Amino acid sequence: MSKESKIPGPTIERLALYSRPLEALVENGTPVISSGKLAKMCGVNPAQVRKDLAYFGEFGVRGVGYDVRDLLKQIKRILVSDREWNLCIVGMGHLGTALVENENFRKRGYRFVAAFDSDPRKTGKRLSCGLTILPTADIPEKVRSLRVEVGVIATPSSQAQRVADMLMDAGIRTLLNFAPIQVRAPQCCAVENVDFSVSLENLAYHLAKVL
Amino acid sequence: MSKESKIPGPTIERLALYSRPLEALVENGTPVISSGKLAKMCGVNPAQVRKDLAYFGEFGVRGVGYDVRDLLKQIKRILVSDREWNLCIVGMGHLGTALVENENFRKRGYRFVAAFDSDPRKTGKRLSCGLTILPTADIPEKVRSLRVEVGVIATPSSQAQRVADMLMDAGIRTLLNFAPIQVRAPQCCAVENVDFSVSLENLAYHLAKVL
Repeated sequence: MSKESKIPGPTIERLALYSRPLEALVENGTPVISSGKLAKMCGVNPAQVRKDLAYFGEFGVRGVGYDVRDLLKQIKRILVSDREWNLCIVGMGHLGTALVENENFRKRGYRFVAAFDSDPRKTGKRLSCGLTILPTADIPEKVRSLRVEVGVIATPSSQAQRVADMLMDAGIRTLLNFAPIQVRAPQCCAVENVDFSVSLENLAYHLAKVL
Repeated sequence: MSKESKIPGPTIERLALYSRPLEALVENGTPVISSGKLAKMCGVNPAQVRKDLAYFGEFGVRGVGYDVRDLLKQIKRILVSDREWNLCIVGMGHLGTALVENENFRKRGYRFVAAFDSDPRKTGKRLSCGLTILPTADIPEKVRSLRVEVGVIATPSSQAQRVADMLMDAGIRTLLNFAPIQVRAPQCCAVENVDFSVSLENLAYHLAKVL
């Protein structure tokens, strides 16, 4: 376990990426995959795949590859995605609605159990996922009663920090922020600020190389 | 330039992250920043910041820090974000609308010049950004006339690959896919598949450690 506790952040991010094609392979019934093929499916260097997977023990067979089921199980265990997590979301504009509808969350065991908005024209509205939009004043009580573990922020920039503080005051220690501003949290909490334009900058760099 | 051409992907991703607080510092008129402070603002290890910045030459002063303006300029040059890029988007549901409205794109010089949808109930509608939603049949002509360089996909999963193929047929070689499915492209093209749940898996890993 001591080796696992030192897995670097970029490796963790790639583990999540590796799990995507592995899920498809399990569904197809493919028993074994080589690092080269897995690398190609993820758009990553094969040496990088082997190096990343080496962090949690040797279970590839040289010249043959990895046991698909076993590899996926190990990755899910490390990413703690072998259990369900309860999410709430604040800000039910286009972004919030798109996030609640996104199939990837459900597929990975992330379940939205509450949706909040401060706009009285939105509260009371029923979403296609079955949730009803609640006023932000309900956050403290609902976070407790629904055992919310992760707070997702999809508000305009101007409200993101205030909402983050409300969620942390309600006892949530893990935040995922989609508002286009950096949200800050004290040491006891973890916050991931998602910036769509970062993905675009990776692309632009590659584009400029081929132009 | 040979050293720069070998900058690894994860470093490139972090360069984009570093640029965010640097922009704020330039606006505030802060002249110099230490690697420690920059690291803290980005939630990255200071040694990692120094290592990443070393890829493009030494311009930090030991015990003092980096010239904020100079550092930002270098990063923007490497990320080719010192110019504007023309984007089009396909799929104007909640996700597409949220992306077009997202301030981060505009701030970084990514300009949506066309928005498409296959639903005749949506085409002709005017967006708050000033664009009018066009039918997907217009893609080939508009990509050419508006010199679109990057195609953003925000359709349901079932249509993502078909739309990707349409965009590539129209001459676009760089795609950013937000549909929750892996889109494939031939060698000549670059595609970045954005999966929101990857950020959540990073968080879940950290959460499990503090639980």
